[in-house]
Amino acid sequence: MLRKATTGAGPTAPTTAEVAALDAHWRAANYLAVGQIYLMGNPLLQEPLAPEHIKPRLLGHWGTSPGLNLVHTHLNRVIRDRDLSALCVWGPGHGGPAVLANSWLEGTYSETYPDVSRDRAGMDRLFRQFSFPGGVPSHVAPETPGSIHEGGELGYSLAHAYGAAFDNPELLVACVIGDGEAETGPLAGSWHSNKFLDPVHDGAVLPILHLNGYKIANPTVLARVPEAELDELMRGYGHEPIHVGGDEPLAVHRAMAEAMDRALDRIAHIQRDARENGSTERPRWPMIVLRTPKGWTGPREVDGLPVEGTWRAHQVPLAGVRTDPAHLAQLEAWLRSYRPEELFDATGAPRPEVLEFVPEGTRRLGATPHANGGLLLRELPIPALEEHAVRVDKPGTVLHEPTKILGGLLRAVMKDTAAHRNFRVVGPDETASNRLESLYEATGKAWQARTLDTDENLAHDGRVMEVLSEHLCQGWLEGYLLTGRHGLFSSYEAFAHIVDSMVNQHIKWLRTSRRLPWRRPVASLNYLLTSHVWRQDHNGFSHQDPGFVDHVLSKSPEVVRVYLPPDANTLLSVADHALRSRDYVNVIVAGKQPSFDWLTLEEANAHCARGAGVWPWAGTEDGTGEPDVVLACAGDVPTQETLAAADLLRQHLPELTVRVVNVVDMARLLPNTEHPHGMTDSEYDAVFTTDRPVIFAYHGYPWLIHRLAYRRTGHANLHVRGYKEEGTTTTPFDMVVRNDLDRYRLVMDVIDRVPGLAVRAAAVRQSMADVRTRHHAWIREHGTDLPEVEEWTWSG
Amino acid sequence: MLRKATTGAGPTAPTTAEVAALDAHWRAANYLAVGQIYLMGNPLLQEPLAPEHIKPRLLGHWGTSPGLNLVHTHLNRVIRDRDLSALCVWGPGHGGPAVLANSWLEGTYSETYPDVSRDRAGMDRLFRQFSFPGGVPSHVAPETPGSIHEGGELGYSLAHAYGAAFDNPELLVACVIGDGEAETGPLAGSWHSNKFLDPVHDGAVLPILHLNGYKIANPTVLARVPEAELDELMRGYGHEPIHVGGDEPLAVHRAMAEAMDRALDRIAHIQRDARENGSTERPRWPMIVLRTPKGWTGPREVDGLPVEGTWRAHQVPLAGVRTDPAHLAQLEAWLRSYRPEELFDATGAPRPEVLEFVPEGTRRLGATPHANGGLLLRELPIPALEEHAVRVDKPGTVLHEPTKILGGLLRAVMKDTAAHRNFRVVGPDETASNRLESLYEATGKAWQARTLDTDENLAHDGRVMEVLSEHLCQGWLEGYLLTGRHGLFSSYEAFAHIVDSMVNQHIKWLRTSRRLPWRRPVASLNYLLTSHVWRQDHNGFSHQDPGFVDHVLSKSPEVVRVYLPPDANTLLSVADHALRSRDYVNVIVAGKQPSFDWLTLEEANAHCARGAGVWPWAGTEDGTGEPDVVLACAGDVPTQETLAAADLLRQHLPELTVRVVNVVDMARLLPNTEHPHGMTDSEYDAVFTTDRPVIFAYHGYPWLIHRLAYRRTGHANLHVRGYKEEGTTTTPFDMVVRNDLDRYRLVMDVIDRVPGLAVRAAAVRQSMADVRTRHHAWIREHGTDLPEVEEWTWSG
Repeated sequence: MLRKATTGAGPTAPTTAEVAALDAHWRAANYLAVGQIYLMGNPLLQEPLAPEHIKPRLLGHWGTSPGLNLVHTHLNRVIRDRDLSALCVWGPGHGGPAVLANSWLEGTYSETYPDVSRDRAGMDRLFRQFSFPGGVPSHVAPETPGSIHEGGELGYSLAHAYGAAFDNPELLVACVIGDGEAETGPLAGSWHSNKFLDPVHDGAVLPILHLNGYKIANPTVLARVPEAELDELMRGYGHEPIHVGGDEPLAVHRAMAEAMDRALDRIAHIQRDARENGSTERPRWPMIVLRTPKGWTGPREVDGLPVEGTWRAHQVPLAGVRTDPAHLAQLEAWLRSYRPEELFDATGAPRPEVLEFVPEGTRRLGATPHANGGLLLRELPIPALEEHAVRVDKPGTVLHEPTKILGGLLRAVMKDTAAHRNFRVVGPDETASNRLESLYEATGKAWQARTLDTDENLAHDGRVMEVLSEHLCQGWLEGYLLTGRHGLFSSYEAFAHIVDSMVNQHIKWLRTSRRLPWRRPVASLNYLLTSHVWRQDHNGFSHQDPGFVDHVLSKSPEVVRVYLPPDANTLLSVADHALRSRDYVNVIVAGKQPSFDWLTLEEANAHCARGAGVWPWAGTEDGTGEPDVVLACAGDVPTQETLAAADLLRQHLPELTVRVVNVVDMARLLPNTEHPHGMTDSEYDAVFTTDRPVIFAYHGYPWLIHRLAYRRTGHANLHVRGYKEEGTTTTPFDMVVRNDLDRYRLVMDVIDRVPGLAVRAAAVRQSMADVRTRHHAWIREHGTDLPEVEEWTWSG
Repeated sequence: MLRKATTGAGPTAPTTAEVAALDAHWRAANYLAVGQIYLMGNPLLQEPLAPEHIKPRLLGHWGTSPGLNLVHTHLNRVIRDRDLSALCVWGPGHGGPAVLANSWLEGTYSETYPDVSRDRAGMDRLFRQFSFPGGVPSHVAPETPGSIHEGGELGYSLAHAYGAAFDNPELLVACVIGDGEAETGPLAGSWHSNKFLDPVHDGAVLPILHLNGYKIANPTVLARVPEAELDELMRGYGHEPIHVGGDEPLAVHRAMAEAMDRALDRIAHIQRDARENGSTERPRWPMIVLRTPKGWTGPREVDGLPVEGTWRAHQVPLAGVRTDPAHLAQLEAWLRSYRPEELFDATGAPRPEVLEFVPEGTRRLGATPHANGGLLLRELPIPALEEHAVRVDKPGTVLHEPTKILGGLLRAVMKDTAAHRNFRVVGPDETASNRLESLYEATGKAWQARTLDTDENLAHDGRVMEVLSEHLCQGWLEGYLLTGRHGLFSSYEAFAHIVDSMVNQHIKWLRTSRRLPWRRPVASLNYLLTSHVWRQDHNGFSHQDPGFVDHVLSKSPEVVRVYLPPDANTLLSVADHALRSRDYVNVIVAGKQPSFDWLTLEEANAHCARGAGVWPWAGTEDGTGEPDVVLACAGDVPTQETLAAADLLRQHLPELTVRVVNVVDMARLLPNTEHPHGMTDSEYDAVFTTDRPVIFAYHGYPWLIHRLAYRRTGHANLHVRGYKEEGTTTTPFDMVVRNDLDRYRLVMDVIDRVPGLAVRAAAVRQSMADVRTRHHAWIREHGTDLPEVEEWTWSG
């Protein structure tokens, strides 16, 4: 629970000396931010500024930096005053110079990167490395201590902040939201996260909406609506806004200190009310509206045009410093306006007055273990799969809903994490629809708004999160994982594309973090994509898109993993693996409709460990030499159609030797030089042969298989069937027929491709074509699939 | 300008007879909605309901339908009363049964599909075809008359509505927003669209937030916050909310009619104030909060559980109708509760009382030409490209910023559409950053919020739209195009992924529309992706992602087109083609940084018409036989590196015959059987050879080229270089070196792959490797690229 200020009840105005110390810290941070953008020498301005001190390429964002520095300075004060455990999400992540400056000032930067020491030489390196080849990125990146949020792609800061706060009751998560970012849809929707934050079991989020008025080239919407309207908006979002603004530094420091105290007192009050007095009313959490000029304290005018307080301050306000003596003089005056000699001693170290409010140890924002979540990660208590597996006496005869079986496993994990509360399942209103409803035996759905008697499974402390926003689900889960917890995102397959760009950024984050020794591994981001392309009986074409897998597989191979378990036990095995893994993005595509079980748990574990392999029981090989044809499959529906095709071939062309191969782990198809899971060529050839026709029935877009396997020797013999954008509301079997993925078409493909078949094969082919014709007439008449399709079971 | 009600100033309560007529229409629509979900016979209930009248598979969404029917009924009334030109965007698009019911009632359905006549036989077909194989989709799809919005993927209704309203001053666009959809980020951000709607030149948008309280399985956030808080939220969004609610039909009809009148009077007042009195204050537009039960008038309870007014009413409330006599009886009672005999005559046609408020002709919502925008489309006045082309006397010696040249063309188009106002350019705050600032000589940036003296180019009537939301840009533009206008979306390349799922849905819409003869072609959705992966000097890794092209190219080939013009004149040529095209999604990737001009306009036009071809001047072929190697390239940076490599090869290995091929239209690489732009095999072989090494320098992920070309004879000889996720803030040339796409690496690739080279080649290869080593040291020291790279020009 957050402590109240030691100064006693209610906000107390800071003293003049305190304001001076706050201002000194802010000036120091501003100085260091400007230095990073411009300087590659003379860091303390101990000599007059000369062109050779200036970087040849000026890159970075000044505009947002003074505002971020102000917030950091004031967060330091309240953290120190109240001994808070705090994390800050810096939405305007392009303000890297500010966050780096503060990290260096508080010492965490030098502790993480000892060569950037807290002295003149270190300051010189800090400046030079910024946005410089071989140096550090211009944004608040994984390289930045204390960060869980890059902020380059705007929109996700507030969702990340809430994700960090869930199940962290002692944590304060401050979140700076730029007024540019506030225009994005995902951010606009994120404000409603406060309806999902439990004041008892979760920490607090303090949104700080920073209105500096401009984006790259335009004013921002929220800075140009009347303050009363903005106030209504924030109240409408369920907040209690506190307004702070101005351009006179000392006055702003005073107002900001008071606003921070008011906000934190209010948070302490809310938490005490819920935790000690048992209040269950949804509280109005405080938030701060901070209005200061863009590029505040930077050049007022450059070349006769206003800069401070306009969009022109966004990046580098003075562009000609190296060649234009007037610009150079203006930069020097700007830097000296912070009075560096008052801020740093002769060795270049910050003077004690500057550091008066800087917290100690892990209380420092750059040193909080919550921003390096692997430090706090506990193993997830995953039960033995035997307790949840389905019994399979004979393949292809018993049906289960795979995701429902998985639901049992997740229920156990949810139950066994009740004490540590470090596991959540998120989804856009589809947990039950996706057959994971067993979870509600272990926890409820997080919900702080009003409830009715007819409601089911809603709970203040629920750890299933349902909201009709894939962006929120993704953002919450990312924040939760990066602060050292575990989770699963279950989504309709097609709508995973809504978070394409978010998962890009998370993959980039993980890819970079893995290369930083000080960043400890975090739990993987696990997707369960269900309600997939083949079973959109209620919804049709708009809900049919299997391309998320393609999207993910084009990203960093050290991070991405894609699994298509064909039945219930393989889904259990894959999920177990994914939940135990670290630093990956695992995409699992699995059906929720009743579908055949093929493998026992033991077989499933062995098959998933291989990732792809022959199912000997399904084929007709006699162990001598290569088969006549390979039927390969990946995904539940394609596996069913492939097995049915194998059945037909055994009946109609018994002399044909058929090999059935199932692929669970898609990356196995890649060469081992391209992905850690990739097969060597000899492994691949042993499974797929080098010269036999391979008819590959794939769950998604067929070209993915070619893209993965194009380097293989047998690639020219590979014929892939998959989804080819022929969708609508129709029967399940009609969907596969429309896309030429059905059992009859697969048999025809075999007959078309295997040379030297008996004459009889032509008649078999015709009979397959006849069934397809009969199908078309039947469904239009009856609205259901052919009885022989509905009644089929594996007869091998 | 919208007319006021004929009943005079101020809302007038409808008479009892009028309410009865409204209710009759609503009951008829509800009856028809239920009929579509359940019945395949006995449409008028002229005999007792029997199992054989029930569809074998019950698919569809009842829950939202009565609310949509209510809105449609009341829109009819005000359209008729005020002779409005109106369009409605149905956000809960899964309520297809409702919109189809209304379209059939008003006659537009039968006019569009004569076999579904407005009589008993037609009603029977209407019911049977719904969500039935070979029938119509369950959603408000392109097949639905009057629709521009499918609504399957929630979040975009309000943005579409605004897009339709822009530059349509006489149009009212009503927009029903479900409380589920309202939780999405894109919808939450869309409310701010009212800061961009000009009351003089644009039409009106009337948002109707329909709170039926539930999603699939959960209550909705906005239905469970106090009404006062919701009211603050809507006011904070800049609206004047009007609240209507209840569950007693006649009372709700009265309240809804009054609310509609109040809203439309207010809109008429706002428009008169702006258009006649010259008011420039941003108005508070009205909106309606409509609160009615989910599944209203459906079964109260089923099997002992509450259904009406709960989430259980979402899809099919009675599931066992075919087998459970109690369910069957309940369905019959439900259907008969609408008193169909009062609503339809013996022939099955709606009785006159039911149609009292149905408008005439194109005033009907199903018949508005705005929903079939191709009917209203005018040719865009595109000037002769000669006026904007750059002069190229010698390739590779003069530099231009390609997008800036394009800006000149766009300025001309913007200027010449000033009268018809049928062209807009949208972008997330990047129009100037992307060098299209010439546009501001022809128009301003749309902006209705407060302005300051320092602002530039803001204008109430501007037709450049800038907002920091890719979702809004995309949604606005889609709505604008589907209502028969033209436009361009300019975006940072990486962040186009933010709208991956939206473009999916738009492609699906176009793909389906193209197959419907009554849907007229609309202008293509044109993307200009710039600030691309190779030039993120300020931002680094998070801004580097060339995968939007991959995403789009996996969708329907009849719709998608991808162009990578390598210089200014080719960009002009491609843009000209894209702006003239219809029913496509055109993605153009082009740089904004100064880059070399290669082709004259005449050459550019010829090259773009071919889409891919040999640049004879760049190679060293003598016209006899095949070259030793093909250097292929696509994209501006790869083209530059390829030409520089060709330069190096000419100098260092003059005996080698080199062919340089440039690809502008990526689909040319596909077989002609897979894409309308695909080359035949003989065309491809003539360009790329069948057996020579092809070193392909590609702008994006290298596997895309393999995915496109894997069927070609020479595929085994194809070696692709591209972006492989090695990004950071560094110099432009270091970016290509990090990804092995640089000129020196390309020369090494040639030497590694061409057999039988002179012994000297090994020394050349080593010298290339040496430059790369020198590069690494140089940039870390100087922060700039090697002088020989910076100073290079084409010497051929």
